[in-house]
Amino acid sequence: MDTAPGRDTRWLTPEEQRVWRAYLHAVTLLEDHLDRQLQRDADMPHVYYGLLVQLGEAPERRLRMTELAKQAKITRSRLSHAVSRLEKNGWVRREECPDDKRGQFAVLTDAGYEVLRRTAPGHVEAVRQAVFDRLSPEQQKSLGEIMQIVAEGLQPKEAGADLPWLR
Amino acid sequence: MDTAPGRDTRWLTPEEQRVWRAYLHAVTLLEDHLDRQLQRDADMPHVYYGLLVQLGEAPERRLRMTELAKQAKITRSRLSHAVSRLEKNGWVRREECPDDKRGQFAVLTDAGYEVLRRTAPGHVEAVRQAVFDRLSPEQQKSLGEIMQIVAEGLQPKEAGADLPWLR
Repeated sequence: MDTAPGRDTRWLTPEEQRVWRAYLHAVTLLEDHLDRQLQRDADMPHVYYGLLVQLGEAPERRLRMTELAKQAKITRSRLSHAVSRLEKNGWVRREECPDDKRGQFAVLTDAGYEVLRRTAPGHVEAVRQAVFDRLSPEQQKSLGEIMQIVAEGLQPKEAGADLPWLR
Repeated sequence: MDTAPGRDTRWLTPEEQRVWRAYLHAVTLLEDHLDRQLQRDADMPHVYYGLLVQLGEAPERRLRMTELAKQAKITRSRLSHAVSRLEKNGWVRREECPDDKRGQFAVLTDAGYEVLRRTAPGHVEAVRQAVFDRLSPEQQKSLGEIMQIVAEGLQPKEAGADLPWLR
């Protein structure tokens, strides 16, 4: 690409391009892989599974919808769509929040908990085989640090920040 | 989660869980961030932009559809859908392959090249700010190595491997 006139674009160096392309490839392949595994074993995409996990770990297996969107790092409309699908499967139900008319809870049902219990071993194994089994302890540590930095950078504390769950 | 009877699940340790959760958060937030940036600046999602980049770098700005799917690590049906949208925008056109009736090329048009030229500086800046500016040279190197390992592990060489672009 040519630099547009009057701009001083900080293009990626060849080495940075290799890093960035490896990231895009790994992320795309891994998401495809885990989606396939979960579709096959539990008839749901990876993002839905993540929502069940969050609810399964929450006190009384329930979270406010806004809190669940924040934990999953997704928009409220995407969450609302996903929860509607999970409700149809009988795995989640919505409950109104008694002291806040606008608030709503998502609650993991017994059937949802059972799906999670049955699906978790196969999913953990898939994650281990694709990621942890292939990396040294140092690489695992480094991956955690790097991803923590990137995730924090994309969640600035200022009011008015463009965060998915505030949209 | 309880271990299902008769299975010996290798659950993630608390430290591995932190690494995995940081990965999921960073990837979800970064994809949202880059999608927003590209939707705002060029009215297209991140995955479409990646296809234009691949075509822009190819000889004569053209690639076989199967090769483009492989380079983008996506399924042929997802690619076909994306190329149809890019065709409607006038940024890509399809051409039949003269010596292979089943083969088809995707070709970047002049309008597509112009969109890429205009959009690339802002996109590179977004990638730099979200990733490279935040990491030390050692972390950048480590990220590349880790992602290379994960990407290669998900593309086994055996015939019959379940790769997105072969579906």
